[in-house]
Amino acid sequence: MLVNGHPTQSIRIDESTGQVFVIDQRRLPFDFTELELKTASEAFGAIRDMAVRGAPLIGVTAAVGFYLGLKDYQETEDMQQYLDNLAAMLKSARPTAVNLEYAVNRVFRVLQGVPRDSLTRLAFEEAGRMYGEELERSRNIGLHGLKLIQEIHDRKNGGTVNVLTHCNAGWLACIDYGTALAPVYEAWNLGIPVHVWVDETRPRNQGARLTAWELKQHGVPCTLITDNAGGHMMQQGKVDLVIVGTDRTAMNGDVVNKIGTYLKALAAFDNNIPFYVAAPSTSIDPSLSNGNDIVIEERDGNEIRFIEGIRSGKTESVRICPVHTAVSNPGFDLTPARLISGLITERGVCSASKEGILGLFEEWREK
Amino acid sequence: MLVNGHPTQSIRIDESTGQVFVIDQRRLPFDFTELELKTASEAFGAIRDMAVRGAPLIGVTAAVGFYLGLKDYQETEDMQQYLDNLAAMLKSARPTAVNLEYAVNRVFRVLQGVPRDSLTRLAFEEAGRMYGEELERSRNIGLHGLKLIQEIHDRKNGGTVNVLTHCNAGWLACIDYGTALAPVYEAWNLGIPVHVWVDETRPRNQGARLTAWELKQHGVPCTLITDNAGGHMMQQGKVDLVIVGTDRTAMNGDVVNKIGTYLKALAAFDNNIPFYVAAPSTSIDPSLSNGNDIVIEERDGNEIRFIEGIRSGKTESVRICPVHTAVSNPGFDLTPARLISGLITERGVCSASKEGILGLFEEWREK
Repeated sequence: MLVNGHPTQSIRIDESTGQVFVIDQRRLPFDFTELELKTASEAFGAIRDMAVRGAPLIGVTAAVGFYLGLKDYQETEDMQQYLDNLAAMLKSARPTAVNLEYAVNRVFRVLQGVPRDSLTRLAFEEAGRMYGEELERSRNIGLHGLKLIQEIHDRKNGGTVNVLTHCNAGWLACIDYGTALAPVYEAWNLGIPVHVWVDETRPRNQGARLTAWELKQHGVPCTLITDNAGGHMMQQGKVDLVIVGTDRTAMNGDVVNKIGTYLKALAAFDNNIPFYVAAPSTSIDPSLSNGNDIVIEERDGNEIRFIEGIRSGKTESVRICPVHTAVSNPGFDLTPARLISGLITERGVCSASKEGILGLFEEWREK
Repeated sequence: MLVNGHPTQSIRIDESTGQVFVIDQRRLPFDFTELELKTASEAFGAIRDMAVRGAPLIGVTAAVGFYLGLKDYQETEDMQQYLDNLAAMLKSARPTAVNLEYAVNRVFRVLQGVPRDSLTRLAFEEAGRMYGEELERSRNIGLHGLKLIQEIHDRKNGGTVNVLTHCNAGWLACIDYGTALAPVYEAWNLGIPVHVWVDETRPRNQGARLTAWELKQHGVPCTLITDNAGGHMMQQGKVDLVIVGTDRTAMNGDVVNKIGTYLKALAAFDNNIPFYVAAPSTSIDPSLSNGNDIVIEERDGNEIRFIEGIRSGKTESVRICPVHTAVSNPGFDLTPARLISGLITERGVCSASKEGILGLFEEWREK
């Protein structure tokens, strides 16, 4: 998608030099800067400290991190031990995203029994393959979700389609297009009038900082609202469709996504507004029968006590509550399948149910 | 309730000098300072700029403002015209709170046909009467709501009762005790273990700034959470009871309260958790059959774009989104009666329905 009028992606791999660059998303929307990742530790740090975030981008960054780690391998070290340690380190960067584990395991498997002098090349190729697959997945999610927007547009006799989204599941969370925002970009690029209600998404404000930024950069009309306001907008008939992303999807259609998603699902259900989850297959965990057992990450309390913003051109943090206020900061919540109108996957839209998912992903059917 | 160990109220009227002081709530929790109100314009400004806020406190401040305005009356002016203008000005300070209109009309009526030299004294006495009535209303709401907390405490075999609240309907919003928090203070003062989940309440963060502050000052254990987290806390069984305030209550039990209240009501309903609204009779509008026609105040967008906090001892505002981001900032939302377990009034707890309300307030029954 566009940044300052130029096509831009969240991660950039230079095929000739093997260099890797990511956008430092912690500094958006105040600064647009790229960060070069030179080592596996730097990739780990970028994921842990959320310079990169969003399940698909985390996966690709971890895969690239594996490749970077192999460049530092010393001949005196035990290779299998080295691979084990590298995989374990990368997987520990963030606890909730299934893509992270999936990506690391995939590169790890490719490298088993491979001659030492091919390891780096094979890891690089595998990371590149995953990069390409993520791109394609986003594109296909966009095309399938586009039909939902098109239908509403037609039903409204050519009127603007108002989409509400939570957090950032746009191109910044992926490689390009996004997951939840991919249908919006497809529609916009085709000339269908869309408008996005952007939840600010406390505590880290990914909506205010990232979603509002990337939509504005690409030219898509959007309006920032507090997380509190979405229900009211739905009651007032100002929302036609909700699309959110997912960090982890269980086989029964339960979705674990950014904290607050559940509240929007309840409001959409109460107002008879379609609530869709853009769920690439990499977010679906075939081993999870439902979402109840997914461990919810409890994050640093200072994410709530302090808010970062810009003032006189400088990025600053201010404390917004009394000193030493006790806080609890769960990063995600569980949206039960019963509240979800459907999952938008790269193979099509299905119901948020085991039958729905298996209908598109036959290969997960137990023999 | 206590501030730095000393009993404190949100507004202080000096009986002997006639001086009026309010806490400047815009500066909490970073500074605890009092503001002297000397004129009707200052009372108007304090309400409009939210130095004082909360329906009951707004009402008393407006009544006091009427008294202050009379002190400035010049003999050359037409008295009735002067009273009309004063009433109109005070009523225009905030559009949603019914208490404001109620309070101004009440003082206005008392002054009709009264000799000029008695006006100021009568206005002062009427404001003092309203002050006393608000105190008593809060106290009684506390005692009636206490029973709900006591029941849960007993059912949990003496365990801690976890109450979730939104915004600030504590003593800072009233004169003392509060409305939604009055039962919590009553329970705490009796030694019943309570713990409060405090929604931060974007955009103005009254939860983070006021509720967390006043609970901490009085010693009541509380934990600050984002507005997004309440549903998750309920799913996890960490909330026993929700109590919120109301800015305006319709006769069918519909409640208009701080934006985001509706989302918490949906989550409580979905998790079978009692959701009570502390509704003093002054918040109930007998002329409103339901809440659909209540005009929702659209507030300044910069309340969303900028957040105020403290940094190196100074209060500062930071911008949290791209420049010129479009925002929408509705101040309130409508919680339909069907989601409300009951109203806690100064006369007892009733169902959120016309029958419930009329059962306690017979005088509103149409003849």
